[in-house]
Order: sequence, then C-alpha cells, then structure tokens
Amino acid sequence: MAQYPRLNHLAIAVTDLDAALTFYRDALGLHVERVEHVEREAVTVAFLPLGNGESEIEILQPTRDDTGVAKWLAKRGPGMHHLCIQVSDIETTLARLAAHGAELITPQAVQRPDGTRYAFIHPRSAFGVLVELYELPPSL
Amino acid sequence: MAQYPRLNHLAIAVTDLDAALTFYRDALGLHVERVEHVEREAVTVAFLPLGNGESEIEILQPTRDDTGVAKWLAKRGPGMHHLCIQVSDIETTLARLAAHGAELITPQAVQRPDGTRYAFIHPRSAFGVLVELYELPPSL
Repeated sequence: MAQYPRLNHLAIAVTDLDAALTFYRDALGLHVERVEHVEREAVTVAFLPLGNGESEIEILQPTRDDTGVAKWLAKRGPGMHHLCIQVSDIETTLARLAAHGAELITPQAVQRPDGTRYAFIHPRSAFGVLVELYELPPSL
Repeated sequence: MAQYPRLNHLAIAVTDLDAALTFYRDALGLHVERVEHVEREAVTVAFLPLGNGESEIEILQPTRDDTGVAKWLAKRGPGMHHLCIQVSDIETTLARLAAHGAELITPQAVQRPDGTRYAFIHPRSAFGVLVELYELPPSL
C-alpha cells in the first residue's frame, strides 16, 4: 500500500515514437512493456515501467493533427506533456481543488471503459504543469 | 528491490515556491516532507514524496538570477524542468548513451558530498526532456 499519492505516469509527447524509443529504450536502457494504439485519443503510446512497475513513462505520438497533443507538439516541440497522480478518492480531490480555486479542465471525473476515472487540472493553476488525476477501480 | 530503473524525482521549476505549495500541498493534497535551501545549486527545494517514498516531486525556486534554472524560468515560465532516473551503474549507462551518440551535458558522472553520482543528458538527445541520471551510494 502506497504511503503517498502515487505517480501513475509521466507522459512525454513526440512526433516520432520509433526514434524516441531508440533513445529511451536502447540508449537510456528503460524497458518497453508494450506499444498500443489508443484510437479514442488518437495516439500511439509506449509504456515504460519504472521502479516496481506501479509508475511508468508513457511516450505518446499523435496519430491525427487535430488533437490537443498534436497541437501542443506543433507549438512547443517534443517534451514532457503531463504528469498523472493517482489518488484514492478523485471526487474529494476535485472538490478540494475547486475550493482552492484551481481551474479544472474536467470539473467532473470521466470514466474510461476499464473503470479508471480521470480528470485534468489546467496548467495555469498548476504552475505550468498539465496535471492529470487517476482513481483506479478496485480491481486494478 | 526495484525491477526497473526508478524515477528518483521529477523537478518542477517555479518563481514562487510558497504559492506553488499552496497548490501542490493544500489543493492537490501532496505531502511536503521538507523544504531545503541548496546553496551550491542556488535553489530552494521542496521535496514531495510519491508512492512508497522512493520517488518524489521536487519543486525548485532559484535564489539567484544567473543559474541555469533561473534562465530557463525567465525564458519559458514555470513547468516541468527535468526528470531524474536512478540507475544501478551510471558509468555503464553513460557509456551506452555515448555509444548511441547521445549528447551528454556531463560526460563523466559528478559526485555529490553525500556520495550520489549524477549526470545530465541534453534535451536535444532526449526528445525535449532534460534527463538526469542518479547512482546512489550503497548506503542510501
């Protein structure tokens, strides 16, 4: 049982995933667990587990030009895109954030098909960092 | 024992640490273990442990205008500054990176007073990410 909120993942956005893996896997020595195309988010994602595998680096390559990630990349170039903190109770966390005046991109948590609930906090409230929150379903 | 290289820390650079902690601690709910002034790097750092405490977010506020972090902040504004991956053998990792043509800011690992050895990889080689490597001494 984690003592503190856990880093679920740190997302890095790139335009060329194969080239990025040549660096992160072959040169840096990280392990690539799997590469997956996520149609609903229009990204191909490589998952690179860290530590005991409960946190990971996700390297994202957009597969369309009209998504948020693609536009971010076109404007800024590749780099760290967002970090995702896993909390035990996303509703309580969102309520506390709202009470502190934080700007929420998704004021209500959204549920994925696998039961994971997520929300995004705007970088304007998080000192330049796009912060995602996850609450995993009990089975994960 | 970690199965994969561990995230030692993710560093976020800000100009106002107190304001950043109002968000990250009070609103988001992360724990602040300690705040420390690191004279040799001219930063004040808040350490926010994640998960089982083996990884952390470090929020940095420069205390002088002439450092790399201060210049980065002046140019880009607050945000994710670097990530630090902890490896078991920094020499082997640096040799492998060099063999792959990665641009190393510190081609030789540098040792801190506590025995930690570190090196930085240039963001040009790491798809826009400033990557730090750590090898901790056996006692840590």
